[in-house]
Amino acid sequence: GVKFDPKEHQHQRYNPLTDRWVLVSAHRMTRPWAGQKESVSEQQVVRSDPQNPLCPGNTRANGQVNPDYESTFVFENDFPALQPDAPDPPQGSDGDSLFQSKAARGNQVMCFHPWSDITLPLMRQDEVIKVIDKWAELVEELGATYPWVQIFENKGATMGCSNPHPHCQVWASSFLPNEAVVSDRSQKAYYQQHQQQLLLRYAEQEANRQERVVVQSSDWLAVVPYWATWPYQTMLLPRRRHILRLTDLTPEERRDLADVMRRLLTKYDNLFQVSFPYSMGWHGAPTGPHLSGGVDHWQLHAHYYPPLLRSASVRKFMVGYEMLAQEQRDLTPEQTKNIWGCDFLRHLNEPHFVPYHC
Amino acid sequence: GVKFDPKEHQHQRYNPLTDRWVLVSAHRMTRPWAGQKESVSEQQVVRSDPQNPLCPGNTRANGQVNPDYESTFVFENDFPALQPDAPDPPQGSDGDSLFQSKAARGNQVMCFHPWSDITLPLMRQDEVIKVIDKWAELVEELGATYPWVQIFENKGATMGCSNPHPHCQVWASSFLPNEAVVSDRSQKAYYQQHQQQLLLRYAEQEANRQERVVVQSSDWLAVVPYWATWPYQTMLLPRRRHILRLTDLTPEERRDLADVMRRLLTKYDNLFQVSFPYSMGWHGAPTGPHLSGGVDHWQLHAHYYPPLLRSASVRKFMVGYEMLAQEQRDLTPEQTKNIWGCDFLRHLNEPHFVPYHC
Ligand SMILES: O=P(O)(O)O[C@H]1O[C@H](CO)[C@@H](O)[C@H](O)[C@H]1O
Ligand SMILES: O=P(O)(O)O[C@H]1O[C@H](CO)[C@@H](O)[C@H](O)[C@H]1O
Repeated sequence: GVKFDPKEHQHQRYNPLTDRWVLVSAHRMTRPWAGQKESVSEQQVVRSDPQNPLCPGNTRANGQVNPDYESTFVFENDFPALQPDAPDPPQGSDGDSLFQSKAARGNQVMCFHPWSDITLPLMRQDEVIKVIDKWAELVEELGATYPWVQIFENKGATMGCSNPHPHCQVWASSFLPNEAVVSDRSQKAYYQQHQQQLLLRYAEQEANRQERVVVQSSDWLAVVPYWATWPYQTMLLPRRRHILRLTDLTPEERRDLADVMRRLLTKYDNLFQVSFPYSMGWHGAPTGPHLSGGVDHWQLHAHYYPPLLRSASVRKFMVGYEMLAQEQRDLTPEQTKNIWGCDFLRHLNEPHFVPYHC
Repeated sequence: GVKFDPKEHQHQRYNPLTDRWVLVSAHRMTRPWAGQKESVSEQQVVRSDPQNPLCPGNTRANGQVNPDYESTFVFENDFPALQPDAPDPPQGSDGDSLFQSKAARGNQVMCFHPWSDITLPLMRQDEVIKVIDKWAELVEELGATYPWVQIFENKGATMGCSNPHPHCQVWASSFLPNEAVVSDRSQKAYYQQHQQQLLLRYAEQEANRQERVVVQSSDWLAVVPYWATWPYQTMLLPRRRHILRLTDLTPEERRDLADVMRRLLTKYDNLFQVSFPYSMGWHGAPTGPHLSGGVDHWQLHAHYYPPLLRSASVRKFMVGYEMLAQEQRDLTPEQTKNIWGCDFLRHLNEPHFVPYHC
């Protein structure tokens, strides 16, 4: 019979963090695409727009005036999905287990930089370190009471981001959200069985194999996971030691992380010569009541979920089969490795969206 | 304190089919939207385009010529995600449980009608019945060997659909996909605990409450589930008796289903005066080896996942928090009930995309 070739033949791969499988159908990349194209709006973003509620000195929807901030700037979301002071719903179900509701809680917006026309990979190392420090501060502050502090960045119009100003959000909740529950369960089961953290073992393996590594440094590894669902999905994880949360990073690890992030994001931008859209976020050990222990199975990591598939204008649609049955990808994670661009670091003053020369 | 109001205050709701929670933040609908707009291309679709591989008499990518079909037409996908004859990957993991792969299989495309410029709600009752009959035939045929036969329709450019010709796909697999595994587990647990099918009980409750019912008939119910994640998500389910699969539907139930589908889809089109985009699909008891029993906990149902949120051009983005933490919706399922348009059935010959008068 024909010999199995992962680049040619469909197969499934197991995601040990979510306990789900992904269908890999690499041969599908050859099909023609007549579907929707994303608009690659190369419209020049102005550095400071008097109408943009995220810029220094501007007035927001609620009438508050932003300070003339020079580094990061954090404020309460004017349209929070998690209101800090909302009353609780009546406890439990209304007598029928099919109609259950429960309470939720409180969120912030964090600007990375005073300029609207800059992105993380264009920022200086010391500027990115300030972002990391602020993330850690927010985890410390909100994590003192909330069991889960979700830091996430939506970048680009394709990812529903409505403001080009570089920023992320922080939503803290009185509950562990679904993804946290599942990841906690998987890491715990692995730890109990192997007496080792799943993601420490995984980082070790990927560092040895070098088949899916995109960026590496002495402390960090960025890989396209073996079980990646999005075409250019990556995971950023510490490779050297057991780290529960962003708060536990040493100054050296933060400096190193700033560089790895800048290199990874430059590679993303280089892929299709566009400021790459994505959603990213940090997962670390739960906080609040979990600060006192019982979470040794956790290892800090970040997920990057970028939507693009073939070019700046053709995205992967997670629809139909993906929504009803199972995630499916059109090229293997190993194939993407050779597609990744160089990580030439552009200069801060270089204008955006200029195709890179490297 | 303030009294809890689900329309004003965030809360979580439990999805008993997926064992996941959805965050409901109804107050978020008030925030301004400056993000991406979908292009509402009201470009006239021609009834028969010589370049369209799905039209009767046309030649497809592989050189095959479509018959002059007059009703439904089924053929093997020219770019299958599940190749019927691919070799299996080496069994199990490569010695490390973090790198596991397994085999996958078999898929078809099914045209609903010979015309490109028609959609299900514009088709006659007898034409929609033919679609339902063909669905049942495919479940029978492919389900004889495959444990899961996923029928799904991607409609509209927003849902990654690259061909306006009315069609769906059928992907059969040698495995139960993730969503099937989870739904099977949940329905089984409920059945063991309550000696009643979860979805029969649910249909009964929704029929009594009438808070989220969009369309109903003697045999069928279309509801915005209590735990809906997409703004206008619906579930279509039999309300009167225990039905495992599409193959088990009586001729009366099929006729009734055709009407309920036409009414539901007309309501969708009326919502924002646009041919409504969505992904939909059928979930029924597993087939193949499961035909012999052990699946009494299952009840046939269809899921409709439409992306639009505020208008024909503003969609809900499931990004950031949704990808990293938990699904979140911006209005309650009950609120949508009053937004649903009328179900005036337009005439077959009425041109598309004409705003409805009802
Ligand atoms: O097969 P199609 O319609 O070309 O492709 C579409 O549906 C598939 C199944 O849901 C998805 O995997 C693709 O991302 C989507 O573009
Ligand atoms: O809060 P934003 O950026 O306005 O909104 C965006 O991110 C949210 C959190 O991921 C999503 O729920 C919204 O659908 C998306 O448009």
